[in-house]
Amino acid sequence: MELICRQAEEKDLNQLVVMLSDDALGAEREDTSRPLNPKYIRAFEQIARDPNNEVIVIEHSGQPVGMMQLTFIPSLTHVGSWRCQIEGVRIRSDYRGQGLGKRMLAWAIARARERGCRLAQLTSDKQRPDALRFYEKMGFEATHEGFKRKL
Amino acid sequence: MELICRQAEEKDLNQLVVMLSDDALGAEREDTSRPLNPKYIRAFEQIARDPNNEVIVIEHSGQPVGMMQLTFIPSLTHVGSWRCQIEGVRIRSDYRGQGLGKRMLAWAIARARERGCRLAQLTSDKQRPDALRFYEKMGFEATHEGFKRKL
Repeated sequence: MELICRQAEEKDLNQLVVMLSDDALGAEREDTSRPLNPKYIRAFEQIARDPNNEVIVIEHSGQPVGMMQLTFIPSLTHVGSWRCQIEGVRIRSDYRGQGLGKRMLAWAIARARERGCRLAQLTSDKQRPDALRFYEKMGFEATHEGFKRKL
Repeated sequence: MELICRQAEEKDLNQLVVMLSDDALGAEREDTSRPLNPKYIRAFEQIARDPNNEVIVIEHSGQPVGMMQLTFIPSLTHVGSWRCQIEGVRIRSDYRGQGLGKRMLAWAIARARERGCRLAQLTSDKQRPDALRFYEKMGFEATHEGFKRKL
């Protein structure tokens, strides 16, 4: 399968929101109404303006079929090193189980190294056992508890 | 006890590195040699330049006695909302058990709301049972696994 990893563009946004929603947990918290909720457009612009945030898509036949967000964080810890945080990893439902997640994560790790990061990190909901196994296979270790608090 | 929460300044840096190191896990990964490793200075400058990163100190009698880093992350998820990530939370050893962590976390939550964040998040090493209990008491839920991978 011919796949391209690239920075997302605003034209991808409708499809990105579909991917974010096409998931048991995402369905409850996203807004799939059309025209697109302007909050998504504003968020996309804020990400695009920030040199330390990137939305990456994996594209097949001209269509984004997977996505993730990378945040590069300058940190005092580990002798003042950068870390790369991965969030919002999604693969379009009809493309799951074909190794796209693996391709995308490998791309993220290469990109994090290119940006000088010493650590990659992500959290994954404990209600997603398949995702947890996947990240372990990708060399991540669940050494931490991932705490969230709504504001 | 009179305490002030404020943005860290470069003059605090020596004491910040002492705090990062004064800990079973931190001792192995930080560099306490003097003069200060220039990587810390560079990291501090990178954080200071980035409007979405803040190092916060809690000060007593003119001295920083606690610290944390806040990262404000624009996100497509949750209908394009911002999240606040908390990292590198430390209280100077002789100030532990006096409620400083609670004060600092409450400050972080107020700051995250002020910045328009809908979610606060952090990870805590599973080898720190006291910290895990503390974050639960502060209203955080360990709904996620926190994965790390060295690069």
